[in-house]
Amino acid sequence: MPELRQDPVTLEWVIIATERAKRPSEFQSQGGGTRQSCLLSQRQSCPFCEGNEGTTPPEIVAYRKAGTPPNTRGWWVRVVANRFPALRIEGRRDRHEIDDFFRMMDGFGAHEVIIETPEHCDTIGIIPDRQAEEIINMYLDRFLDLKKDARIENITLFRNRGNLAGASLLHPHSQLIGTPMVPGLLRRRLEMAFRHYDDHGKCVYCEMIEKELAERNRLVLENDEYVVFEPFASRVPFETWIVPREHCSAFEAISREQAKALGRTLNAVLGILFNKLNDPDYNYVIRTEPLREDHSGYFHWSLHILPRLTTTAGFEMGSGMFINPMPPEKAAEFLRAPLEGAASPPPSSLNK
Amino acid sequence: MPELRQDPVTLEWVIIATERAKRPSEFQSQGGGTRQSCLLSQRQSCPFCEGNEGTTPPEIVAYRKAGTPPNTRGWWVRVVANRFPALRIEGRRDRHEIDDFFRMMDGFGAHEVIIETPEHCDTIGIIPDRQAEEIINMYLDRFLDLKKDARIENITLFRNRGNLAGASLLHPHSQLIGTPMVPGLLRRRLEMAFRHYDDHGKCVYCEMIEKELAERNRLVLENDEYVVFEPFASRVPFETWIVPREHCSAFEAISREQAKALGRTLNAVLGILFNKLNDPDYNYVIRTEPLREDHSGYFHWSLHILPRLTTTAGFEMGSGMFINPMPPEKAAEFLRAPLEGAASPPPSSLNK
Repeated sequence: MPELRQDPVTLEWVIIATERAKRPSEFQSQGGGTRQSCLLSQRQSCPFCEGNEGTTPPEIVAYRKAGTPPNTRGWWVRVVANRFPALRIEGRRDRHEIDDFFRMMDGFGAHEVIIETPEHCDTIGIIPDRQAEEIINMYLDRFLDLKKDARIENITLFRNRGNLAGASLLHPHSQLIGTPMVPGLLRRRLEMAFRHYDDHGKCVYCEMIEKELAERNRLVLENDEYVVFEPFASRVPFETWIVPREHCSAFEAISREQAKALGRTLNAVLGILFNKLNDPDYNYVIRTEPLREDHSGYFHWSLHILPRLTTTAGFEMGSGMFINPMPPEKAAEFLRAPLEGAASPPPSSLNK
Repeated sequence: MPELRQDPVTLEWVIIATERAKRPSEFQSQGGGTRQSCLLSQRQSCPFCEGNEGTTPPEIVAYRKAGTPPNTRGWWVRVVANRFPALRIEGRRDRHEIDDFFRMMDGFGAHEVIIETPEHCDTIGIIPDRQAEEIINMYLDRFLDLKKDARIENITLFRNRGNLAGASLLHPHSQLIGTPMVPGLLRRRLEMAFRHYDDHGKCVYCEMIEKELAERNRLVLENDEYVVFEPFASRVPFETWIVPREHCSAFEAISREQAKALGRTLNAVLGILFNKLNDPDYNYVIRTEPLREDHSGYFHWSLHILPRLTTTAGFEMGSGMFINPMPPEKAAEFLRAPLEGAASPPPSSLNK
């Protein structure tokens, strides 16, 4: 059983993922870089490819052709439990004190994989809009379903693209982890948004998109539903935020039309990054309010994309501050510029 | 001039390092891994090697043989300004508001490199104790000197070892960045330590080392001055803390004898990691109180080593929580076990 342990100093929680445990000697360095080249590029052995459904944990849900049974071909988006879960859905969510100093709880929680397409070498950014819409539809379905489990207080939905971003499989997939507590980082973001609202009487994110739409120098694109920009204090080169125009604190409260529009917007933005930055490794994450709390007055959900083009080092770890060598205004200008030459990505980059 | 920008939501500061700026196209992905293999292994062209003193910015200070002039051979620890500084020592430390929403300040600060040895392939862990003592002596000298500059509020001293840890040069060196504000992460650590003191009447770190010395299952080593252990809520495999037995909130308040003992302890601990984990990439950082504040009742300085054996991904970014596949009790057991076979590291690993 995994464990959740609380740092006695920061009160932050850490997942000790015993299901993912290796022997200590397996952590021995293989020398820089080589150990990261573990991407599975063979479709035959890829557990997420169509035809290999039997090699994953059982399907939780899938969008599939009428009449096809679960765990067989015929799907276009498919959700399974993570084979090496950081947290397990069986277990209690009670905290217990080991003694008067250390606190921990069972590693209860949900850890799901959203397989985004049956195609091994596709990725959001170069897929049809219709498929991108369906991926976000599935995100929404999973939020709404997991919200019914009162033990889960928060969902972190994220995507790791490429080995530098922590992906161990190439086949396009997102993940979500539902935790039995609200992470401290989110708690602080909520507090900060609340403080801004108290000070100014406005949602800080609403004010930010107003600013970005007026100044336009950090804007990447906009449409009826979303505003996409490089944030003023970008922590990494080409950090990109997708923020809904409509004030809304909970991702799971969006309409199906807004979900579809997010799919199209995400496909467009990741397409720009794919083409302009040559298929960079990146993470994205949906920042939304906890499932059982109402911060609707002052919080505003958004999707943050963080390319992994630089390496965080001791300074970032020690101070929590980031050093970013790319001013966001220049980054936005580069991303807005028309693409030279090729209309579609070179085929070789698809097989990275 | 670099800029310090404040995130309007989190109020965290980010360094926009214009001195390190590249053209946007230079960030284009080279494909996973290969772009990180940029370690300089040629002594002739290494700016930190003895004999190449003219290729660095001018020496700030050095321990060198009597009679040898600055910026020539004859030194054993040497400090220079970073050639591509994240912050610059020229400039004002005033904050200014761009408008009613965004805040920034000039990128004022100190960014120094402590070259730890004239030898290209040495590293703490495999050097004589005497040299390790001198490195820590120099850390202490730099803290005491920079503390005289009232514009600098905090020093983050860190070491990046290996390309996965963000090092761009192989030659052993540490860095320090002095900032004109206290980073939010440190502010929160201070608050949490204060809260613990208010609740329990004890320093949380003093209580922690008492626990670790009593339980011993996370202990790596101990001596008269320091206790070394894997913390209960380790965020990464083989996270290792060196904590002074004596309650003291400021690194720069230690005696020269305590500094020497830290050098020997660090050399021993990094030697264990070097041998047991095959020269892993890692960061370490000294966590200490801000230069102009007194938190002596409840804060306790320490040195934290974070090996880079796993990759942080979208979940960590989204939630601030870490997933650690190595229980600290097992990590400590592995590090305590006697080394099999070789008394010294294989020569090949020195040329990584």
